Amino acid sequence: MISFASDYIAGAHPEIIKRLTETNLESLPGYGTDEYCDSAKEKIKKAVGVEGAEVEFLVGGTQTNAVIISTMLHDYEGVIAAKTGHISVHEAGAIEYSGHEVLELPQKDGKLQAKDIESYLEVFYADDSYEHMTQPGMVYISHPTEYGTLYSKAELTDISEVCKKYNIPLFLDGARLGYGLMSRSTDVTLHDIAKLCDVFYIGGTKVGALCGEAVVFTKGNKPKHFLTSIKRRGALLAKGRLLGIQFDTLFTDNLYFNISEHAIEMAEKLKEIIASHNIKFFIDSPTNQQFVILEDGQLEKLQKEVVYSFWEKYDETHTVIRLATSWSTTIEDLNAIDKALEACL
Amino acid sequence: MISFASDYIAGAHPEIIKRLTETNLESLPGYGTDEYCDSAKEKIKKAVGVEGAEVEFLVGGTQTNAVIISTMLHDYEGVIAAKTGHISVHEAGAIEYSGHEVLELPQKDGKLQAKDIESYLEVFYADDSYEHMTQPGMVYISHPTEYGTLYSKAELTDISEVCKKYNIPLFLDGARLGYGLMSRSTDVTLHDIAKLCDVFYIGGTKVGALCGEAVVFTKGNKPKHFLTSIKRRGALLAKGRLLGIQFDTLFTDNLYFNISEHAIEMAEKLKEIIASHNIKFFIDSPTNQQFVILEDGQLEKLQKEVVYSFWEKYDETHTVIRLATSWSTTIEDLNAIDKALEACL
Amino acid sequence: MISFASDYIAGAHPEIIKRLTETNLESLPGYGTDEYCDSAKEKIKKAVGVEGAEVEFLVGGTQTNAVIISTMLHDYEGVIAAKTGHISVHEAGAIEYSGHEVLELPQKDGKLQAKDIESYLEVFYADDSYEHMTQPGMVYISHPTEYGTLYSKAELTDISEVCKKYNIPLFLDGARLGYGLMSRSTDVTLHDIAKLCDVFYIGGTKVGALCGEAVVFTKGNKPKHFLTSIKRRGALLAKGRLLGIQFDTLFTDNLYFNISEHAIEMAEKLKEIIASHNIKFFIDSPTNQQFVILEDGQLEKLQKEVVYSFWEKYDETHTVIRLATSWSTTIEDLNAIDKALEACL
Amino acid sequence: MISFASDYIAGAHPEIIKRLTETNLESLPGYGTDEYCDSAKEKIKKAVGVEGAEVEFLVGGTQTNAVIISTMLHDYEGVIAAKTGHISVHEAGAIEYSGHEVLELPQKDGKLQAKDIESYLEVFYADDSYEHMTQPGMVYISHPTEYGTLYSKAELTDISEVCKKYNIPLFLDGARLGYGLMSRSTDVTLHDIAKLCDVFYIGGTKVGALCGEAVVFTKGNKPKHFLTSIKRRGALLAKGRLLGIQFDTLFTDNLYFNISEHAIEMAEKLKEIIASHNIKFFIDSPTNQQFVILEDGQLEKLQKEVVYSFWEKYDETHTVIRLATSWSTTIEDLNAIDKALEACL
Repeated sequence: MISFASDYIAGAHPEIIKRLTETNLESLPGYGTDEYCDSAKEKIKKAVGVEGAEVEFLVGGTQTNAVIISTMLHDYEGVIAAKTGHISVHEAGAIEYSGHEVLELPQKDGKLQAKDIESYLEVFYADDSYEHMTQPGMVYISHPTEYGTLYSKAELTDISEVCKKYNIPLFLDGARLGYGLMSRSTDVTLHDIAKLCDVFYIGGTKVGALCGEAVVFTKGNKPKHFLTSIKRRGALLAKGRLLGIQFDTLFTDNLYFNISEHAIEMAEKLKEIIASHNIKFFIDSPTNQQFVILEDGQLEKLQKEVVYSFWEKYDETHTVIRLATSWSTTIEDLNAIDKALEACL
Repeated sequence: MISFASDYIAGAHPEIIKRLTETNLESLPGYGTDEYCDSAKEKIKKAVGVEGAEVEFLVGGTQTNAVIISTMLHDYEGVIAAKTGHISVHEAGAIEYSGHEVLELPQKDGKLQAKDIESYLEVFYADDSYEHMTQPGMVYISHPTEYGTLYSKAELTDISEVCKKYNIPLFLDGARLGYGLMSRSTDVTLHDIAKLCDVFYIGGTKVGALCGEAVVFTKGNKPKHFLTSIKRRGALLAKGRLLGIQFDTLFTDNLYFNISEHAIEMAEKLKEIIASHNIKFFIDSPTNQQFVILEDGQLEKLQKEVVYSFWEKYDETHTVIRLATSWSTTIEDLNAIDKALEACL
Repeated sequence: MISFASDYIAGAHPEIIKRLTETNLESLPGYGTDEYCDSAKEKIKKAVGVEGAEVEFLVGGTQTNAVIISTMLHDYEGVIAAKTGHISVHEAGAIEYSGHEVLELPQKDGKLQAKDIESYLEVFYADDSYEHMTQPGMVYISHPTEYGTLYSKAELTDISEVCKKYNIPLFLDGARLGYGLMSRSTDVTLHDIAKLCDVFYIGGTKVGALCGEAVVFTKGNKPKHFLTSIKRRGALLAKGRLLGIQFDTLFTDNLYFNISEHAIEMAEKLKEIIASHNIKFFIDSPTNQQFVILEDGQLEKLQKEVVYSFWEKYDETHTVIRLATSWSTTIEDLNAIDKALEACL
Repeated sequence: MISFASDYIAGAHPEIIKRLTETNLESLPGYGTDEYCDSAKEKIKKAVGVEGAEVEFLVGGTQTNAVIISTMLHDYEGVIAAKTGHISVHEAGAIEYSGHEVLELPQKDGKLQAKDIESYLEVFYADDSYEHMTQPGMVYISHPTEYGTLYSKAELTDISEVCKKYNIPLFLDGARLGYGLMSRSTDVTLHDIAKLCDVFYIGGTKVGALCGEAVVFTKGNKPKHFLTSIKRRGALLAKGRLLGIQFDTLFTDNLYFNISEHAIEMAEKLKEIIASHNIKFFIDSPTNQQFVILEDGQLEKLQKEVVYSFWEKYDETHTVIRLATSWSTTIEDLNAIDKALEACL
């Protein structure tokens, strides 16, 4: 049985396992104060191209979203997000758990539009009872989005401008950032993101690590006593080395980018295979997540050979499924799914 | 200057002031344990027609919504509400402050539709990742709605059925309940509400009291240690007599219903006046809140004579405003607004 | 049956009832934007003697403590309080509900000692794992304390110095402030409090109002978007006039101070009565709350004539009770308790 | 430089690293639904000797404490703990972040006494204003405690009895459980703990794992929708395999107990070394954490050779430090510290 269920079906990239093994018996201080964390931070600062950037490591995506949003927002503020944003739907109310409202705006292909944000803010401040409403205090976008789509540099710049105009930080959820950066149809670089966003994170869990996300504050805006805030949210890892060593490895010799590129190559081949079977795409995704529509009878056959993710019902007799490649996808996997798709149609 | 800005522009109904004055020097125990609270509870139980009903008094509407929702929901649950619901928009994130998500559904004339709720729940439980999402744990409706509209008995019954089917309590926000019950075009009685809802409240602040809302749990479902939960939310009034005496007065000799009826009579006359000037209604409201569309130039004149509430921009040159009657509206007020409208057109 | 159970057994001072009645039908804007709120704020500013003071009204004591503490603290901070402080014991976890820890220090006669605070802070910052602990972000004191005792000017100054040294705001809970200011053995004035504290409140509920506390920010330090924060905590009163009119009355013609003085006079006479019966005081209180120790058999008799508050068990056969005077206590009440005490011994 | 700073200075036990490497490329489902988690849960159930036990994995200790306490308590409840308990001091307010109060009781050698708990509960329920206070809803103990001490079976049984009498669950924090179970002077077995406690956890982070704690609910009392609650607290690991494989390894061939025994052996030898230098113990600890008192001048020398943990100032010129052994401590480490101690005295 092969799996295209997600981009976190395998352990860690072998190079990471190797480094964890090599360093295993070294005696290191806890809570992220070890030399590997320091080294990883330096490498990431260099990679993002912002001298004064501040880097912190957290364990997982939902945790990272909740920590960033709840430490950067004021009490009376909420965060603007797409109705399909991860924080809006699939985090079981983690943002609300922290006491903050997610202000949901309409989306197009999983993306927020600068004009929708601006119009929301205009209407908000024109309402003379706005003090009775949650104050918009941040814009959250994911890149790639939950639908595998990407913001263009122009789109990102426009959103960033609106944020600046209203003095609201822009936060980019990069749980799958590598796959976005190495997409063949993006014009957005890591430097662009660091320049246009106030805070973002470089996803490890879905891009080769066992766990771990690297948060980057780009404007000298890391919240005060951030460690205390992380600790009280139960998000401080005692053996911070686990995160430091992984990110140090990922940012050595371009590993993060190389393995992301491999996933994109696999995704492109997967798209060709899907197209060759005349299977309908639900959305046009330039990254590692592909969404296709299959008839329910076909799926019943397919699931005996391939693990995929249920996405949503398309209509009475069809379903949208997600097929994800990753750094661990092989040519053999592709051949196998090719055959399985052939057989189920 | 006359005011139609809201239904809480005056103090309390004179009968309430009279009773507060008469009882003022009586020595009474605190925190709602006095005889007036007891008496008011008994009268309300009788009025709602449910033997085992449990009644509790709170100070204001947003507070009441937050207390009810956060004490009745489990940690992992959210509350379904219309996108235009008071808790969705105008409570500054009070529900999120308590850690819970408002699950917003589309509305029609400010109302939720039973079929939308049902379809939401069906899709939710059909999603195999539903454990990663906020569990729907309650349905919130307001009656009258924020647009002055009312559920029919059939609509309310349908929503109640869906709630029963999914074992989710139905909560009715009755901040303006009196005006709904005395509307000329409703077929919903207080007994119906008590039978169809699991919890609801009878609004005092907007219907003749200085402050106060009477919460009614209809199914033996008052949360355990409710007083402690109220206290820790800063919602426990030391001089509970202030609430007890007011509700005791409102539920003596039908005062609550009589003053609500007066407001409806005034609203009906106001509608006639508005129609006589060929002013366009934004929505057809059978209760005390009327929403009309005026040209911005007209409003500039009107606001010199009449205090109204800005509702929203209608288009580039028009605005929706709210005009509310209440128990305190007089024929003189109506004559004055008639003239003022005449003059501004 | 006479009651010395608390200082909130009666309604409001008659002058307040009179003013509420007179203004009852005036049409006023909501949420504290009416002219009476404005006027009351001005009078209070004058009374506290700080030009730039910012005044806001809230409904009750626990609510006020929770709102002030949770809006002034940063996420990672807690509030230092005496182990016997109201927020430590009798608010059902209201501060924790807001996400913050109460850092309890030992007390003497219900009071914090400047040296204990200083030593706590010294030890805290000397601990190299202090980032793993709740950061001390405020000092909370009550004046009078829960035991009726008072800080001297020297004690208050010392605490204020420690707070300044560590850059931590000093918050004074003045739920019974009037009774403290008019005590015969205090050297602390309202001006002193305003100068030495960063925020405090002037209690209304226990000093003549139906409800209401007046918060005073003395250093231009009112939290941003305070109204939104109040609203989301369910603490914003729609008919703010109820608070404005009451405080406007209390701060007209020295009413607040005069009625407090009356309560103190009654308390002094009560102390004489108690002493004349050779009843033992539990603590020496110079304000309106008196704590005495009675044998349980005596109490059984007493409670048929007098309502008092159980305070705590003293030993197997004795109990500490509280007897409180207030603005509403009369000479007749004192005569009655004199007889009742006589009879029970 | 050798380190006795803590029991989490090394990576994972080599057997764990080996298993992580071997299974690394296997394709597994996420969020703890993989076969290794299943297998580990079965092995733990067997080890604890409770048929219907429910096991769940979390990432770290503070997180685990916060998740268990906040999902098991009702809104209006707090948790009883020793003043020196980890949740009272060193979790940066994580319990309060979840909205709950830690009700601190006095401790003796880091331990709660059954009689203190009982007396607290008696006084609590005898107070007729107890509804105005945080309801005690759980007892939290750590075993070993923060001072390395252990409850005897009799002490644990007594506490358990009090909990049963008051119908309050008993929660045992076993962050260092292995070291407690293998102590030479304990009469408490894992079976005892499972029988006497309602919930406890078996610490991984400090006993050989990179991260991970195994929570055991012993009475069919796992909170409903626990996964959703974990997710919204940001505590759900996408690659649950990381926890499953580690605990599966630890509970294969008694590894968990064997490596704990090694740490105890090392600790006993360390105690001998300390005693041989006539260094004073701060407390008599039968587990892997040793607390000793040194003169500040001695420490200055020592810290050039040995990494230790500052614990607290003993007096003006002396300091308490902690020296911890673990599964990774070697004879060479002991020889080195022996020499270093010799040199610094």
